[in-house]
Amino acid sequence: MFEELSTPAFVVDRAIVRRNCERMRARLNPPTRLRPHVKTHKTLEGARLQLGAETGPITVSTLAEAEFFADGGFRDITWAVPIAPSKIGRAATLATRIDRLNLLVDHVDSVDALDAFASSSSTGFDVFLKVDCGTHRAGVDPESAASIALVERIVASPHLRFRGLLTHAGHSYDVDSVEAIREIAAEEAACLTRFAGKLQVAGIGVETRSIGSTPTCSVVERLPGVEEARPGNYVFFDAVQTGLGSCTLEDCAASVIVSVIGHYPERAAIVTDGGALALSKDGGARHPGREPEYGVVCDLAGTPIPGLHLRGLSQEHGQIAVDAGVEIERFAIGARLRVIPNHSCLTAALFDRYTVVEGAEVVGEWKPARGW
Amino acid sequence: MFEELSTPAFVVDRAIVRRNCERMRARLNPPTRLRPHVKTHKTLEGARLQLGAETGPITVSTLAEAEFFADGGFRDITWAVPIAPSKIGRAATLATRIDRLNLLVDHVDSVDALDAFASSSSTGFDVFLKVDCGTHRAGVDPESAASIALVERIVASPHLRFRGLLTHAGHSYDVDSVEAIREIAAEEAACLTRFAGKLQVAGIGVETRSIGSTPTCSVVERLPGVEEARPGNYVFFDAVQTGLGSCTLEDCAASVIVSVIGHYPERAAIVTDGGALALSKDGGARHPGREPEYGVVCDLAGTPIPGLHLRGLSQEHGQIAVDAGVEIERFAIGARLRVIPNHSCLTAALFDRYTVVEGAEVVGEWKPARGW
Repeated sequence: MFEELSTPAFVVDRAIVRRNCERMRARLNPPTRLRPHVKTHKTLEGARLQLGAETGPITVSTLAEAEFFADGGFRDITWAVPIAPSKIGRAATLATRIDRLNLLVDHVDSVDALDAFASSSSTGFDVFLKVDCGTHRAGVDPESAASIALVERIVASPHLRFRGLLTHAGHSYDVDSVEAIREIAAEEAACLTRFAGKLQVAGIGVETRSIGSTPTCSVVERLPGVEEARPGNYVFFDAVQTGLGSCTLEDCAASVIVSVIGHYPERAAIVTDGGALALSKDGGARHPGREPEYGVVCDLAGTPIPGLHLRGLSQEHGQIAVDAGVEIERFAIGARLRVIPNHSCLTAALFDRYTVVEGAEVVGEWKPARGW
Repeated sequence: MFEELSTPAFVVDRAIVRRNCERMRARLNPPTRLRPHVKTHKTLEGARLQLGAETGPITVSTLAEAEFFADGGFRDITWAVPIAPSKIGRAATLATRIDRLNLLVDHVDSVDALDAFASSSSTGFDVFLKVDCGTHRAGVDPESAASIALVERIVASPHLRFRGLLTHAGHSYDVDSVEAIREIAAEEAACLTRFAGKLQVAGIGVETRSIGSTPTCSVVERLPGVEEARPGNYVFFDAVQTGLGSCTLEDCAASVIVSVIGHYPERAAIVTDGGALALSKDGGARHPGREPEYGVVCDLAGTPIPGLHLRGLSQEHGQIAVDAGVEIERFAIGARLRVIPNHSCLTAALFDRYTVVEGAEVVGEWKPARGW
């Protein structure tokens, strides 16, 4: 079957996706609810497998995704990226046609813009405060008095409904041991609990503490005792996650099927038709002193082939260095390989359709949301 | 106008594209013809500006591009990536509906596969031999006797028409001076001329020597005296090309308009909605000892803003570090910036439509080919 696909092809093994999703749900512990992030796959089918149900609460990364999932019957959506003021009108329109659209803010200007829009249009918004638990990408400092003042500003608005605190331990991708990820996971939840305590002193109740990253949610037996978790990448996993210890290679559900188009035994190299536009130029985890590799090169069954190193990606060429001692003749012109990408979210986003398989059988095709 | 676009938005300045295209054509010197590569923009409109005509010979990177341009009235197409045997049938179908589809080979197995297909279907193929002029990505070694034997094999087939030699000096991206690029440019052409000389001794004429990379074609006053040149990236240029000396920032025609969605003066950082899915994770040229930056951050007029460093890209966040002394208040929530990407080919490929402007005026929209 893999021999018939037009290459490069993005392939999703649904049986592995299902197992990854079941395992994540098995980590749920009251009071924690799962609000899975759908940004990795951006498909209705993937979200349903995450939830184990036809619909349910989800997390998205773009407004276009939110609209796509609303069209697909999802009625409780958190857009977990701080909103740009220019998108408030579109968000308001979407909010009227589903049960709940939670928006994210971490700055008084965004709060003011939402309040002003709602005030002039007799509408209202559900709002989460983004909290920085140590990643230092977005979010307010939970130790700062200004952060409490910002929540007071939200609560004081008659147009805004304060729904809780949301954080993402993105720095769990930067450490080099499962033990370090566990420490970050504990702090991800504890940081929200401490901040909620301060808000309680200020007379403000926190309905939902929302945490979530695939590393922190994957290395724990049970999700920490917060109200909500939002992991997403675990649906597919990828080579970076295996490096972190979030999963094994057998848990990687997404891969790219490529064809050998160049065969150069004299310089121990082969070239495939899976280049940067089929895999993305994500260099993966940093390995000081080692050249980056752009994925794990496997046979069609998904077993890694020792001695093959995907060292170069140009637009439509994948350059594989072959170690001495490897029988390069196995990888003749037309031979096919399966590459587990470094970063499945960015790789999936390069394809307009996914070939869905279970083992070696094609069982369907998924079409993802695209754009913003 | 830039204030009205939904961000992130991919913007092409058509006036700059036109100027870049005119300059490249002005470097033409008989007998050299331009067969521009369209892989950077993948649009009918861009190809016409490259040619300065409604149609003409072009170079593509995928079979889907070739089909798209054939549908758009282009009838002389070189697919400049070695063909995978599984795509021969589709290529044969396309070849029947245009005047010329040149295919690329560099291995006897591909030659045999084309010959076998043509023989069994009473068709024929136009074929270029890919030659390695020092990039060591794809192509035969022009110093090897086996390479002459391979051309003899092509010429001996009654089904294959040997059309010439094709090379690409991709290693011109890896050097650090214009002088070094000029040396590579000279060798790019000389290498084909030497190999053509050897073929002539063997009784084989070479109709076309085809060279081309944007660095090697941009740093010369006149293109070297070969029959064909295939530069492509020069249509848009990008931050990498400015680093190489192929162009200046004023020549960069493609940019991404982003909105500030996070503002953190306490840690001298802002965040925009232009993440890895809007810019690509191409780290650009290597700068040993310096952190990579993912593009040049400009104001909406396209002037670089000193002290802003796009150091981090996650899926939907662009993280900009702000130097001390820069008035960070200028970059409030909702402010817009214009980012010149590191690698315009990979960035353009992330968008399904381009907003086309001349200066600050929107003049159209281009829809590119996608997929394989």
